[in-house]
Amino acid sequence: MIGRLHKVAKLIPAFAFALMLSLTAASAFADGVPAPLQQSGMNLMPWPAHVRLHEGRLALTKQFDIAVTGQPGQRVYDAATRLLQRLQRRSGIDFDQHVVTANSGGEQTKLVIHVRRPGVLKIGEDESYSLRIDSGHAVLTAESGLGALHGLQTLRQLLQSDSSGYYFPAVDISDKPRFEWRGLMIDVARHFEPMDVIERNIRGMAAVKLNVLHLHLSDNQGFRIQSKVFPELTELGSGGQYYTQTQIKQIIQYADDRGIIVVPEFDLPAHAVSWLVSHPELASAPGPYHLYTRFGGKNPAFDPSNPETFRFLGRFFKEMASLFPAPYIHIGGDENSGRQWSNNPAIQAYMQPAITSNAALQTQFIQKLAAMITADGKQIIGWDEILQPGLEKGAIIQSWRGKDSLYQAAREGHRTVLSNGYYLDLLYPAADGYLNDPIPPGTHLKRSTRRNILGGEAEMWSELVRPATIDSRIWPSAAAIAERLWSPQDVRDVAWMYKRLRAVNLQLEELGLTQIRNQGVLLRQLTGRHEIEPLRVLVDVISPVRGYQRMATGHYTIYSPLASIADAATANPWAAIQFDEWVDRFVEHPDADTEQQIRAQLEQWIANDPALEALVEPSPALHRVKPLAQSLVTLAKIGLQALDYIDQKQPAPQAWARQTTTDFLQARAPAAATKLRMVDAVEQLVVMALKGGQAGGSHAARDEEN
Amino acid sequence: MIGRLHKVAKLIPAFAFALMLSLTAASAFADGVPAPLQQSGMNLMPWPAHVRLHEGRLALTKQFDIAVTGQPGQRVYDAATRLLQRLQRRSGIDFDQHVVTANSGGEQTKLVIHVRRPGVLKIGEDESYSLRIDSGHAVLTAESGLGALHGLQTLRQLLQSDSSGYYFPAVDISDKPRFEWRGLMIDVARHFEPMDVIERNIRGMAAVKLNVLHLHLSDNQGFRIQSKVFPELTELGSGGQYYTQTQIKQIIQYADDRGIIVVPEFDLPAHAVSWLVSHPELASAPGPYHLYTRFGGKNPAFDPSNPETFRFLGRFFKEMASLFPAPYIHIGGDENSGRQWSNNPAIQAYMQPAITSNAALQTQFIQKLAAMITADGKQIIGWDEILQPGLEKGAIIQSWRGKDSLYQAAREGHRTVLSNGYYLDLLYPAADGYLNDPIPPGTHLKRSTRRNILGGEAEMWSELVRPATIDSRIWPSAAAIAERLWSPQDVRDVAWMYKRLRAVNLQLEELGLTQIRNQGVLLRQLTGRHEIEPLRVLVDVISPVRGYQRMATGHYTIYSPLASIADAATANPWAAIQFDEWVDRFVEHPDADTEQQIRAQLEQWIANDPALEALVEPSPALHRVKPLAQSLVTLAKIGLQALDYIDQKQPAPQAWARQTTTDFLQARAPAAATKLRMVDAVEQLVVMALKGGQAGGSHAARDEEN
Repeated sequence: MIGRLHKVAKLIPAFAFALMLSLTAASAFADGVPAPLQQSGMNLMPWPAHVRLHEGRLALTKQFDIAVTGQPGQRVYDAATRLLQRLQRRSGIDFDQHVVTANSGGEQTKLVIHVRRPGVLKIGEDESYSLRIDSGHAVLTAESGLGALHGLQTLRQLLQSDSSGYYFPAVDISDKPRFEWRGLMIDVARHFEPMDVIERNIRGMAAVKLNVLHLHLSDNQGFRIQSKVFPELTELGSGGQYYTQTQIKQIIQYADDRGIIVVPEFDLPAHAVSWLVSHPELASAPGPYHLYTRFGGKNPAFDPSNPETFRFLGRFFKEMASLFPAPYIHIGGDENSGRQWSNNPAIQAYMQPAITSNAALQTQFIQKLAAMITADGKQIIGWDEILQPGLEKGAIIQSWRGKDSLYQAAREGHRTVLSNGYYLDLLYPAADGYLNDPIPPGTHLKRSTRRNILGGEAEMWSELVRPATIDSRIWPSAAAIAERLWSPQDVRDVAWMYKRLRAVNLQLEELGLTQIRNQGVLLRQLTGRHEIEPLRVLVDVISPVRGYQRMATGHYTIYSPLASIADAATANPWAAIQFDEWVDRFVEHPDADTEQQIRAQLEQWIANDPALEALVEPSPALHRVKPLAQSLVTLAKIGLQALDYIDQKQPAPQAWARQTTTDFLQARAPAAATKLRMVDAVEQLVVMALKGGQAGGSHAARDEEN
Repeated sequence: MIGRLHKVAKLIPAFAFALMLSLTAASAFADGVPAPLQQSGMNLMPWPAHVRLHEGRLALTKQFDIAVTGQPGQRVYDAATRLLQRLQRRSGIDFDQHVVTANSGGEQTKLVIHVRRPGVLKIGEDESYSLRIDSGHAVLTAESGLGALHGLQTLRQLLQSDSSGYYFPAVDISDKPRFEWRGLMIDVARHFEPMDVIERNIRGMAAVKLNVLHLHLSDNQGFRIQSKVFPELTELGSGGQYYTQTQIKQIIQYADDRGIIVVPEFDLPAHAVSWLVSHPELASAPGPYHLYTRFGGKNPAFDPSNPETFRFLGRFFKEMASLFPAPYIHIGGDENSGRQWSNNPAIQAYMQPAITSNAALQTQFIQKLAAMITADGKQIIGWDEILQPGLEKGAIIQSWRGKDSLYQAAREGHRTVLSNGYYLDLLYPAADGYLNDPIPPGTHLKRSTRRNILGGEAEMWSELVRPATIDSRIWPSAAAIAERLWSPQDVRDVAWMYKRLRAVNLQLEELGLTQIRNQGVLLRQLTGRHEIEPLRVLVDVISPVRGYQRMATGHYTIYSPLASIADAATANPWAAIQFDEWVDRFVEHPDADTEQQIRAQLEQWIANDPALEALVEPSPALHRVKPLAQSLVTLAKIGLQALDYIDQKQPAPQAWARQTTTDFLQARAPAAATKLRMVDAVEQLVVMALKGGQAGGSHAARDEEN
């Protein structure tokens, strides 16, 4: 995964492999965490700013209890009570203490939490904490209750076990975030997500110290929040799928309890169909409008020349400003083609003479909106298209198009949030988001510019997810992004990240997230069988095509079943990730143990094939995976041949390698909107065989296609 | 599972086994469904009243569509739309039609639904339907919309696939229920169950044609529904966990959409702590009262001598009568010890001279309540304790204590519902509820008495479940009970039921029920590992101790973790059920294929052990299963020895069998609140070996302990 390099292996003959690889940079990044900590078995994520491991452990027993001192606020009591329940469930120990209150604790209290003040739920609040554990007890200290919540999550992640029992290792941790805005956006407009989806994802966010939940509440496919001033917005524009105000208050409270700010987005002036269904009179072209069932297509916009547009939006935003306590309202502002504006003579007339372009008209639209929203006591956030001359400096810019606009906005005095590179729906592996530093090492920015970069946000656009699959797109990748935004810049060893991510993935499942369990559900539905292990072996080495490829190939609508193998596959196929790591290690330092691991995996893939075929054959919905299953076996055999050559310590014949070219070509072809992800690693073995099994070949040039 | 016979195998020496078995009745029950239908692969449950299978199939293609004629009502359009989505997800085919409306359909419509009238959601409504499928199209005909809903569920269950595609077999089905009350009770008082738990269980109910959801809304541990007249009931008596009136209306609507009646229960006069927390002045003993965190214990009751009790309850029930549209209100009435009444001099004085016992006082209490509730336009239901002289004839009796009280109440003119034998929380295998006929063959009852037996209800008491585990207690066992209540009396072949139940279990998972997926979650949490197959092999042959044994051994509270191996294990361990069936078959008709299946299973258990031990050792929460793991291996080896003797066709030595006695004893001992469920089957092999491998030994005498 390291040392990404654009390579089109299918265009070059096998004998050029070696040349290619010699151009690949060796393992790239320095890693700031000492090896003993990496090997400690502490599966913390985000990794804290400072960690020191000591001898000893604090055993978890029935007497484990918690006391809180200072002015913690209710959040900390509730979080401490939840921690008790989670530790109980993991260990099976029924504690004497079940609820933490101001009266809890005694002489022997095992965990004491000191908090100076409850803290205010806002960007920039002190979120630091320190945690000291020895064999007698643990002490968590924080300036604010929000910091204490983070410390409790760290403690939860620290729980380990061996045959003698459950315990916390003795550590000193002192921790605080690198960035103050660590967000997750969920698009509830394209596919609506019910309350329990939002609540479980809030729990997941809190577990990895994310602090902003951004809800994309309106788009061409639906308007997802009840307005009491304009009830027609959901009556006509939601298909019955929206949050009532009672429900959104419940979400806000649920998030607040866990230290998370909810930022609502109402996308304007384009992406506006769901508003215009009930208010065609505010559109830039005549109606009627109907909710889109497809994605993409024309992007109708509000009429900026109509004074009624702003009277309407003014009343609407006043209502929302009082509903959402966060000081920010996101007004979207993206992807307005301006076509409707250009085609409307009244709007063209309105623009004369001062407004010289659609871009300028959009700026005026945003400025008017910003003025109203500011008057309601809120600041606006918008996608980077809103960054135009004249935009008021209080506006926060969310950059989806790249770091150039991020830095430009920051230089111009706007606070900014990075989203580019964090699009979860594009299904790039977790390592990609992980290495996407908002301010990479060596970036030259003035201190004032740097200060304006608040952080980043993982984005979950929902065209191709439904409640049963959305968690598997968000998690665990969002945890890697959370580490990027929280942890020190030099924490960036990818292999170690994946090792912890796999453990954290299980901890996230504890919280009710469905990314692991629902894969089994989909595979059982696809096969109509209980026994799905042979299919899981395949799914564990494939992932969906990346970027916008799947969207481009299918004719997707809001009704599409989204129950195929591409929906069961994930961005992080663990067997392929593990295989990559073994091959990387073997190519650098060939040793018998690693070779044995690689051989065992290759042999498993071959041995699995008959059972896999027996599952696939009677399930027409699975027939499209057949080429992948065949390629997996073919490449596994090639891998074993390569190892045989390597063992002989003589360069493998070029002719043999040439014969594999077609097999590699086939193996790289997508099928069922997925691709095999162990191809490059097998290719590395072939290259190594061609070089006579010499070590030090360097990490693979990984497939950068989709 | 057939031919249950009380046997205490551990008390008898091995050489007496043969004698025991000779006393066991041979396979017991006639089966009303012809073998060709049983072997057809149609996994229908409940099995319809009349089924005829034809040659041919209706292929499922992109052009599959639905039209509705007559006066179906909205329920049928919505259900048809949901069917499209489910067929899409199973097949991966994105249909041209996505929504069914009154305008849907054309010349070539694949499924036409004729409905004469929407129907009224009530007990006794016409629920019949007929379904005719040929290679061209399908026709579903029903008198009422409720019947049409059932027909759509049957159609959904009929979908099959082979390598050529997805299809419905050509059939003629004509179907109607045997009993009109087919219920599921969920106790949301002991452990509260959030909205999504209730909604997914409503979907499951509809899938197997259950039609009454009974919610146990109050008990000593919590009051679970908002009263606007007495908001203090939940403010003080729920721990914050209750349904708002908006939410309960949503549940009622959700159930109504699926043809399901919601019956609320407010348990009185005992089980009353959660009322008395806010209204101690209505109690029979001085307060204050606090919500119970434990189960059982004293059972405080309302004061029947206090006129304020009835003023309060009158206002409360008037509010609830208008909130719940069902014509029934359940007032509990169970388990009133009368102790508080006996100890209260004022109540004793009030009873003089006319009321001669606490039972008579309870009857007066219930009569007063019934009069008020009847005045509100509802009928009361109560547990069978309310059946006392003088009870008004409109009251429905729900029998939890046995069929005697069921028949007695029916003879006395009360309509009745059977719950005895359907307690899901006691974790008896599905076969037990399945064979628990409300009116077994040969029962002599007058026609008028018989007519008063409305049906039955599966009961899910929630002391030992939480939202993550409750589905695995309800499903799939409730589907077997649903078949008992719907299907003809002579549909009762247990092996065939289990075969279909296993398939239906997957279909229930499609609806979002978690009984399969959450087992993996629990096992991953217990082990802290992703790879749990070795542990699953063990879990698949154990089930929790039955009846009230677990409750008796543990000190359970509402805070107990409920995350142990006993929570992951289920009442229907499939590998054990399958093994039983193989052994039953082999003992009756020994053949090489079956022996090979049995041997392969025994060898798998032995081969699995090292990996299982490696999982268990580092997980202290699992250490208590070690004896089970050891016994599984020991018994597997004994089973293989028995087969070796059987192959030799000479009686095995008595001394060998005697040596196994201790192993069987150990294998029958519970561990970690679970028991091995393949012990009897291995014992059958030993008995067969002792008899020289003779066939015709008959079915096993199965373990009737817990």
